[in-house]
Amino acid sequence: MKKFVNDPQQFVPEMLQGLALANPDTLKYVPEHNLIARADAPVAGKVSIVQGSGSGHEPAHVMAVGRGMLDAACPGDVFAAPPMDYVYETAKLMASDAGVLLLVNNYTGDRMAFDMGREMAEAEGIKVAVLLIDDDVAVKDSSFTVGRRGVAGNFFVIKAVAAAAERGASLEELVELGKRVNSVTRTMGLALTSCTPPAKGSPLFELGEDEYELGVGIHGEPGRSREKMADANTLVANLLDPVVSDLPFSSGDEVALMVNGLGGTPISELYLVYGIAHRRLADAGITVAKNYVGEYCTSLDMAGASITLVKLDDEIKGLLEAPAEIGLRIF
Amino acid sequence: MKKFVNDPQQFVPEMLQGLALANPDTLKYVPEHNLIARADAPVAGKVSIVQGSGSGHEPAHVMAVGRGMLDAACPGDVFAAPPMDYVYETAKLMASDAGVLLLVNNYTGDRMAFDMGREMAEAEGIKVAVLLIDDDVAVKDSSFTVGRRGVAGNFFVIKAVAAAAERGASLEELVELGKRVNSVTRTMGLALTSCTPPAKGSPLFELGEDEYELGVGIHGEPGRSREKMADANTLVANLLDPVVSDLPFSSGDEVALMVNGLGGTPISELYLVYGIAHRRLADAGITVAKNYVGEYCTSLDMAGASITLVKLDDEIKGLLEAPAEIGLRIF
Repeated sequence: MKKFVNDPQQFVPEMLQGLALANPDTLKYVPEHNLIARADAPVAGKVSIVQGSGSGHEPAHVMAVGRGMLDAACPGDVFAAPPMDYVYETAKLMASDAGVLLLVNNYTGDRMAFDMGREMAEAEGIKVAVLLIDDDVAVKDSSFTVGRRGVAGNFFVIKAVAAAAERGASLEELVELGKRVNSVTRTMGLALTSCTPPAKGSPLFELGEDEYELGVGIHGEPGRSREKMADANTLVANLLDPVVSDLPFSSGDEVALMVNGLGGTPISELYLVYGIAHRRLADAGITVAKNYVGEYCTSLDMAGASITLVKLDDEIKGLLEAPAEIGLRIF
Repeated sequence: MKKFVNDPQQFVPEMLQGLALANPDTLKYVPEHNLIARADAPVAGKVSIVQGSGSGHEPAHVMAVGRGMLDAACPGDVFAAPPMDYVYETAKLMASDAGVLLLVNNYTGDRMAFDMGREMAEAEGIKVAVLLIDDDVAVKDSSFTVGRRGVAGNFFVIKAVAAAAERGASLEELVELGKRVNSVTRTMGLALTSCTPPAKGSPLFELGEDEYELGVGIHGEPGRSREKMADANTLVANLLDPVVSDLPFSSGDEVALMVNGLGGTPISELYLVYGIAHRRLADAGITVAKNYVGEYCTSLDMAGASITLVKLDDEIKGLLEAPAEIGLRIF
């Protein structure tokens, strides 16, 4: 295994220590519950926004904590949901007078952990709600999910509800807003290679030298089909067209377009993909008003990418443009 | 080859088209000379800051163009210096009344192209200077270099001189400043895997399953030694200690610490590396006052990382903290 890792069991805590050391003024790390939070959270009068999931999808979600984004992230081990009592402890620590919104990508393990964590928190009188994200158009019902999976599109739900929370929206309003953003967000991904969890030390699945997995899940689980390797134009068409036809997005729409790398694909290729997708949308009369190119939700070291579209209106656009600061940054 | 690529000969132009489409208000793409520039460059009264090099190191340098960073980047094909006439055309297009500063990472091919481009521009009366960056401590004289190589530390030279240029520094002042920042910047990298140039379609060099290349160059050229794979603590010590002892950095120093991914290493591992390096420096009495974790100067899809230290003083710290906006962004 060619990775920067000491004890694989300590991979996640060591990453979180590094993240907290890199952001001493803005983030706090609570090792007892494997939790990263804004240093100033909970903020009185503001709903706290929390997301958790298995690790291995960084920057989601621990590096998306900060003002105008998550108040806390509650990660599990690599590709494993966090324990329900960590969810409960996170909700307790983040409980403001305005309440706590738990965002959950739709995977069965995560839903269980967050639903039970929510019940435990509610039993103590904490105002808490769970919002599911299920943007992946690839498959309905899969290895680890009933219904559609929640993948990179969660970025837009986080950004929108977090911006609205900063502006004073109530827990009930945020749930409605989050559902609305999720309902206009669609994603599909493809894997060019497998990925290697530190504790396994070998690739999670096999993929032939001339094959890719279309519609792959963010844990490498099967998608729609195993396809023969093709050029970038074909790969992008095979990702984008099912996304466009699903909502559907149509001529005259204004959208946000995200090209998300899965961990092992260089940013050069992601911009090449962006250019193809942007032009293909323009040809269909769809205008890209906001764009996002880089790594937002990964699968360890997997080579591959996903494409997300969000149908914009003035409210959603304004929320996406609101200021935010997170642990991950360039300068 | 598992890449998002159409015609390998068009890999760089297609990437640049995507980058420009993603930043329509702030960047312009000049296909005739393979050039990315700030939309408003050249800015009257301000020295234009330009860097070029082979492609394959993204985000360096085409994605580092923007206000407070580069005015233009002049890339060559993958791992190939730009043609001298492209350097000349870029200098001509960026010529403001205050002049043009050409930043060059010390590789022989790049030096030749930029020195000849500078001569051609000077012959037309353009005020232009070349500044070499040579932060890599790994080796003196190597496959493609006389002297030390210029690698990820170039980010700090760009950031500092670009901030000073925004504040009205003259070309002569910027050359002195750039030399000073370069003189307190040190880097070393290691490769866990090889990398695959699109036009070659196969790995550039071979590296055994239990080996890494310590002190690797950013084109995969040999470094100090081929070592047996080890845990993260050992890898970080083997990168950091030669950097610390080279300047040397010593107890009481305040530094900027960059952990730079080489393209195929996930951000989770980079933060783990950051934590180890931060603590190792603290143990030596060295304070990390600013930090940078992510991809700044890559080698296509190579797994691996480099560590850069910059010795800070109030002037350099202030310049690193000045505002900047580049094509690469999160929100």
